[in-house]
Formats: sequence, structure tokens, C-alpha cells
Amino acid sequence: MRSEKYTDKLASSIRETESVACIGLDPVPERLPPAILENEDSLDQQILTFCKEVVDVTTPYAAAFKINTAFFEQLGARGWEMMEEFVEYIPEDKVVILDAKRGDIGTTAKAYARALFDAVGADAVTVNPLMGLETLESFVEEEWQGIYALACTSNPGAEQFLKLPLQGGGTLSTAIAEALAEFQKDPLVEGSVGLVVGATQPEDAKAIIELSGDAPLLIPGLGAQGGDVEAWVHLLQSYHGLPLFNSSRAILYAHEEDDTGLSWQQATEIAALTFKNSLQAITTHVIDSMNQ
Amino acid sequence: MRSEKYTDKLASSIRETESVACIGLDPVPERLPPAILENEDSLDQQILTFCKEVVDVTTPYAAAFKINTAFFEQLGARGWEMMEEFVEYIPEDKVVILDAKRGDIGTTAKAYARALFDAVGADAVTVNPLMGLETLESFVEEEWQGIYALACTSNPGAEQFLKLPLQGGGTLSTAIAEALAEFQKDPLVEGSVGLVVGATQPEDAKAIIELSGDAPLLIPGLGAQGGDVEAWVHLLQSYHGLPLFNSSRAILYAHEEDDTGLSWQQATEIAALTFKNSLQAITTHVIDSMNQ
Repeated sequence: MRSEKYTDKLASSIRETESVACIGLDPVPERLPPAILENEDSLDQQILTFCKEVVDVTTPYAAAFKINTAFFEQLGARGWEMMEEFVEYIPEDKVVILDAKRGDIGTTAKAYARALFDAVGADAVTVNPLMGLETLESFVEEEWQGIYALACTSNPGAEQFLKLPLQGGGTLSTAIAEALAEFQKDPLVEGSVGLVVGATQPEDAKAIIELSGDAPLLIPGLGAQGGDVEAWVHLLQSYHGLPLFNSSRAILYAHEEDDTGLSWQQATEIAALTFKNSLQAITTHVIDSMNQ
Repeated sequence: MRSEKYTDKLASSIRETESVACIGLDPVPERLPPAILENEDSLDQQILTFCKEVVDVTTPYAAAFKINTAFFEQLGARGWEMMEEFVEYIPEDKVVILDAKRGDIGTTAKAYARALFDAVGADAVTVNPLMGLETLESFVEEEWQGIYALACTSNPGAEQFLKLPLQGGGTLSTAIAEALAEFQKDPLVEGSVGLVVGATQPEDAKAIIELSGDAPLLIPGLGAQGGDVEAWVHLLQSYHGLPLFNSSRAILYAHEEDDTGLSWQQATEIAALTFKNSLQAITTHVIDSMNQ
């Protein structure tokens, strides 16, 4: 798989699954389904079983899986072993994104890239561009590597810095998007440089997406965080890149909302199918764009 | 140790060692001393031995040790085990800072805090404030926990975003410093909120430090990166907080510069002593400030 350019793998996966859905793995120990918590395994093993079964039932509906590294890191060294085993388990044709939001200089960035791409086995990682784009270079030295840089996040606190108005116009978010578009053109950047853009703020996202030059997008917040799909259909009309919409909690913990007697796996599968279907208009547009 | 407020532990350690030096552990496998690389151990074990021996010979000169997590993360699960074992090895009265530059929302931030403070055992961690200060709250829920938020870094790429001029004056760096000063006053913030301020840019640092209200400072870049101590003596005249100056490579790899036949341990010890001594005027000022 590692000879393939990141965006080629991403495009294939979207095409094969006819889906722009990404399933986020944020395994909160207290929220595991009772059927899993009741078995005799250790909590570590229960978490791993849960993650694998989520992949089993959602694979037909997802182009990508996004692993939130923090939920494994909190388990210490065992968590890293689990992450490696889990990535190995995900079908090879799926895109694996490690949501780690790393960002640091020089040899430190290289070490993070080794940790996430080589030791754990990501296809792409999320990165934090605060210290400047030089800090991202080590993550895109090979064409099979992808990154998604935080540009416009959907948490309330994003107002504090990302939306600060700059002298001469724009915000920190738009400055990041512009810089990433330039960076993407650098011939030394073999990999694919994408952006994280929160789904709950389509109006803010508009400027970012226009600046991004059809870069890959990772869009969290349409599920539990309440973003509006219709607004995104509209927003992406003139975008011809590869977007992924992520949903984590609404799919992982679908069993908590179910009162019809479904197994947790069925509740999760239905949530994933529903999420995929909700994105159908966008998927059709993305696949049409690829075919042109 | 965990009943003590972070800044109390930091103050005690500075006072007892009469030093504001922090030794940074960035173990680059290729740069380990030949005497260590020649033994029969596995590379993992060699790295751990190296780190422990650095602590042994530099402990008299250092108030704190800063561990760059990336260099351990790149070793996979074993790296996390090593980090846990290494933190355990550091004398209890020393401040242990995990340089991890984490930053994320809600439950993810909580999971990172658990990973770094609980699983590994940090006294303080470095954090990235890009997504807003709400992302830092989980790191300072207990008064023994400290954080250092990136405010003004010393890499060339920091120009790109941290120094962007804002509408109404100031830069992103000064906006971060102002927000952190406010955050520090929040009664729910039990811990100690410090700033990372690069040593190579004393002029930029001046505005940040004035805004920071005597918050703890972590100042990298005086060693290999070439910052100017005299400028810092001057800069800190009206500052009455607890600064730490970090040096990593100039101390760890002192043996590479030695042609006098010292053992690597001796070269490292002398480099640590020299670094501590170079900071004497600042140390005297800091201890005088404590005593007032």
C-alpha cells in the first residue's frame, strides 16, 4: 500500500465505498456497551474488542477511520500496543487517520512522524500548524503520507485565537489556509496537505475552503456536534477535492440512544449507514468531480 | 509529592539547586556516546541507560528535567514504557516537564492529561493553545499540575503565525500571553499556568513577559540555538516569577565537541555546570525575588 500517493488511496476508498464518511474511534471506557463491559476481559481488551467490532460493522459505510490517539495514550504503553494492533486490523484499503494534533520543530517533528506513520502505521495524521509550516515538513516527506492541519475548529474556544482579525484583513484561520495552499505547491512536499475545518461553522469555513485550492478536507462536527449537512452541500458546490466528514460519538455510542432492543452492533451499524446516507448529495458531487 | 502546588515544588527545586537550569532529554539514537553504543544492550536499553546517566551527572546543576516525548514515542509502545521507567528514576525533588505540546478539546484533552500526568508521571507539560484556552483546562485541574503554553517560539517558522500583527495592535503571541494571564486568575484553574518563550528573541519576549504577570517561564534556546544570556539578565530585571532555561543538545552531546579525552559523562557534567554558571546572575535575581 505504501507506494500509493495518499490522495490516490483516499480517492479509491471514497469511490469503492461510495462514501465520504469517516468513523472516529474515541473509545471512552465508561461508555463501552454493557455487552462488552460484562465479559471477563480486562478493560484494555474490552476497548480493543469494541474498536474492532465497530470497524467490522461500519466498514461498508466508511472511506476512512480516524483514531483519536489520546484515548489510547491514556492507557500508557499498553495503549500504544493496542493502537498498533488496531491499525493492523483495519482493512488495508481503508484510510487510517491518526488524530494526534502534533506540531514541533526539526528533529522532534521527524520523531513524531516516525511514531505515527511508521510505528503505528497511519496513512495520514492531524497536525497543529501554530509554530509555522516548517514544523509540518517532516510529516509529508513521502507521497503516501497525508496531513490535515488544524485551520478552523468547531469548538467554542476557537474564537479566541483562530478567529482573531488580522491587520490587513482575514483571520488566523484564513492565514493558515493561505499558507497551506502555498506549502502544497512546494515540490519538496511529496505528501498531501489537507485541512481540518469544523462542520459547525459553514460560514467561516467558506473562506477557508475557497483559499484551500481543493486540498483534502477533514470535517468533524456533523454528528454529535450538530453541524448542518444542507449548508455543506451548498458550500462544496465549487469544491473539487476529497472531503471526509467525521462522526465519532454518534456512531460509537448509538446504543445509548436505542430503546428498540437492537444489539449495540446493530445500533452502531444503523448509525453509520444513516450517517453515510445523510452525506449522499456530497458523495455524488465528489465522485462526479473525480470522473470529470 | 502530589500534594504540593506546582510552583511550590518549582521554587523549592530552584532554591535547593541554586539553579534555573532545565536539562532537556532529546535522546537521538545516532548521537549516543560511542561508549554506550559499543555495549551489548539493545538500542532501547542504550537510550534508557544514556538518559539515566545524564540525570546522574547533571542532577546537582538542574532544577528540572524536560523530556521531549517525541523521541520516546518514535520507539512505539516500548518508548512509553521507557518514559515511565525514566520518570520514575528522576529524583523526586526535581521538576519533570513532559514536552509534548498537546492541545485538543474536552474529553480528548482530559485523556492527554491522564496520559502525561498519571500514566507517565509529569509535574508539568507543554501545551499548544491554538484551539483556545478551554483546551488547556483539563491540564490544570489539580494544583500540583503545571503547564507551559507555547507563546513565542524560537524557530524561524514562528514568524508565520505567532508574529502576525493583529487588528488593534499586538501579535498572536501577545494575544496568547494576555489570554493566559486572564486564565491564570480563574479560581477553577488550580494549577500553574506558564509560558514557553524562545530565548533567541529577547525583544519579542519582552512584550510577552510584561503581559504574563510573573507566570512561570520555560525558555529554550540559550544553548545550541544561540540565545544571549546578557539580554535575558536585563529582560528579567522587573520579572518576579520562576523561569527555567532549557538546554538539551549542548549538554547531551557535549562529548561530540570534546577533544581533551574526557569521558562523555565528564563532558556532559561540565556542560551542565557551565550552563548553570552562565545563568548565575538570573538565579541570584530569582532567589532574591523569592526571599522578598
